[in-house]
Amino acid sequence: MTCKGILGVDVGGTNIKAALVFGRKIERRTKILSMAHAGIRRSIEQLKSVIEPFRQEICCIGIGIAGIIDSKNGVVIFSPNLKGWNNVPLTEYLHSEFNVPIRVLNDVNAICLGEWKYGAAQGCDNVFLFTLGTGVGGAAICEGRLLFGANGFAGEFGHTTVNPKGPKCICGHYGHLERYVGAEYIVARAKRKMKRQKSSLTRQDALTPEIIAREARQGDAVARQTFAEVGYYIGVGVANILALFDPEIVVISGGIARAGKLLFAPVRDTARRLVLGAEHRRYKIVPARLGDDAGILGAALFAQSRGKPTEIS
Amino acid sequence: MTCKGILGVDVGGTNIKAALVFGRKIERRTKILSMAHAGIRRSIEQLKSVIEPFRQEICCIGIGIAGIIDSKNGVVIFSPNLKGWNNVPLTEYLHSEFNVPIRVLNDVNAICLGEWKYGAAQGCDNVFLFTLGTGVGGAAICEGRLLFGANGFAGEFGHTTVNPKGPKCICGHYGHLERYVGAEYIVARAKRKMKRQKSSLTRQDALTPEIIAREARQGDAVARQTFAEVGYYIGVGVANILALFDPEIVVISGGIARAGKLLFAPVRDTARRLVLGAEHRRYKIVPARLGDDAGILGAALFAQSRGKPTEIS
Repeated sequence: MTCKGILGVDVGGTNIKAALVFGRKIERRTKILSMAHAGIRRSIEQLKSVIEPFRQEICCIGIGIAGIIDSKNGVVIFSPNLKGWNNVPLTEYLHSEFNVPIRVLNDVNAICLGEWKYGAAQGCDNVFLFTLGTGVGGAAICEGRLLFGANGFAGEFGHTTVNPKGPKCICGHYGHLERYVGAEYIVARAKRKMKRQKSSLTRQDALTPEIIAREARQGDAVARQTFAEVGYYIGVGVANILALFDPEIVVISGGIARAGKLLFAPVRDTARRLVLGAEHRRYKIVPARLGDDAGILGAALFAQSRGKPTEIS
Repeated sequence: MTCKGILGVDVGGTNIKAALVFGRKIERRTKILSMAHAGIRRSIEQLKSVIEPFRQEICCIGIGIAGIIDSKNGVVIFSPNLKGWNNVPLTEYLHSEFNVPIRVLNDVNAICLGEWKYGAAQGCDNVFLFTLGTGVGGAAICEGRLLFGANGFAGEFGHTTVNPKGPKCICGHYGHLERYVGAEYIVARAKRKMKRQKSSLTRQDALTPEIIAREARQGDAVARQTFAEVGYYIGVGVANILALFDPEIVVISGGIARAGKLLFAPVRDTARRLVLGAEHRRYKIVPARLGDDAGILGAALFAQSRGKPTEIS
């Protein structure tokens, strides 16, 4: 494909990030606070204003966005994080303005494509990637192809059940993984422990998983226990991923994945203890490598392949 | 491929079944008690004796076998049900005798291929199939391709965790689905209830899931509760399958699947209650259609496609 550059865009509930991409090189970036909660019309106007400065330099646009996406038709069917985004024909709205090919896909699918082509999962045929943050998303590459599934819903790792008798998830159902390991639940877990145990965390103003990780590294017992438990629940989920997808690599993305051994040790240990035939399996559980760039690079790749990830080479 | 016929073989812990296959037509069948527990040498001799009568009529052989199979090299890496089958180069052993192409694959993968090409999942791009019996196996077709995974282990539905604090599974780990819904555990569940409640099941000699299903249909409360609970646990697992694979169809195979509504009602209900965005999903949960033929037809298909399920058309 001869082209100028590709615009990779990542539309999140908090930020919109975009960058001009040539292959794996990112040339010019922009990042603004998302108005995605302000309703469709203002969101679309904002998105146009993000794209506008790149207009002369791009031959196509790839957009990663949280939610269920009909990538074939460029429609956002439903987005749990973006208010009112139901059946939004995003490609159509943007195409009239920019007149270049535009492809839309799920944001975690974009991250997975990016890490697969350029990052932690390079050269692997069977990959499962998940993101740890406010929510817990996931995506799979099966036998060298990104898995969309019948409804564009595949890989919803955060909404797998790790304990059917567990607490209620934001989606209304019970015992989902996200309800145990989403950022606010990690914080809530630490706070419950702080009531019963002395902890350096009580000196902190606003707790975040990152702060808890930092204090854990400095030896705080509450913080360490919190990560051990969170790692356990993630490990239960990962064991199921290993059993079902048999990936050669499981990639953990998102801020909390930077907690390092604190997180990875209990995840690896639990997964190994729970999965059938561990001694016959070859797999790795590793952190993502590309940070925020993964989603932008992946969205650009998707646009370049004209929405056919099989054509990504 | 011009050929005479294909021999489809299904090697199980209980029986070895084989049949001469032309397309979806099964011409001549044989079924004998398996000596798979008698050690490798006798098993191989037995398998040769099953194949021998078809020698003049076949152009290739496809063999479905329980366990982790290296399909590329025709090696049985490990089989939980067949004693001593570790790293057995099955293709090599048989090829010297019969001198036709031989392909080996996991038995549930074979069933899945059969149901996909000729049975309940015809025309679907994203399929998950599982078998309910002594064990609980599974297989996935993702974006039109059978999923093998990195180690030939993909689809191990029975060994996904539905309750991390649950009882110990035959594989040594805790709270696996098979530990709740494998045939012997269904019977054990009914027996526990019989101690506390009057039941028509007490009049039966040897309880089986089939007998429990029959009595449930005739209104026995213990039998009905047993199926409701078993359906619940399967439903938890199916919800995870829907979340992760987003298949358009989930196919349930094996004897217990014949229990009909008794099983399918609680499975469908639980899966729907647990899965994210049920209202945006299009999927079906259905019984398999081909019975024992699925595995034989699927093994034959695999042989015909020279071990490349992408070439199945």
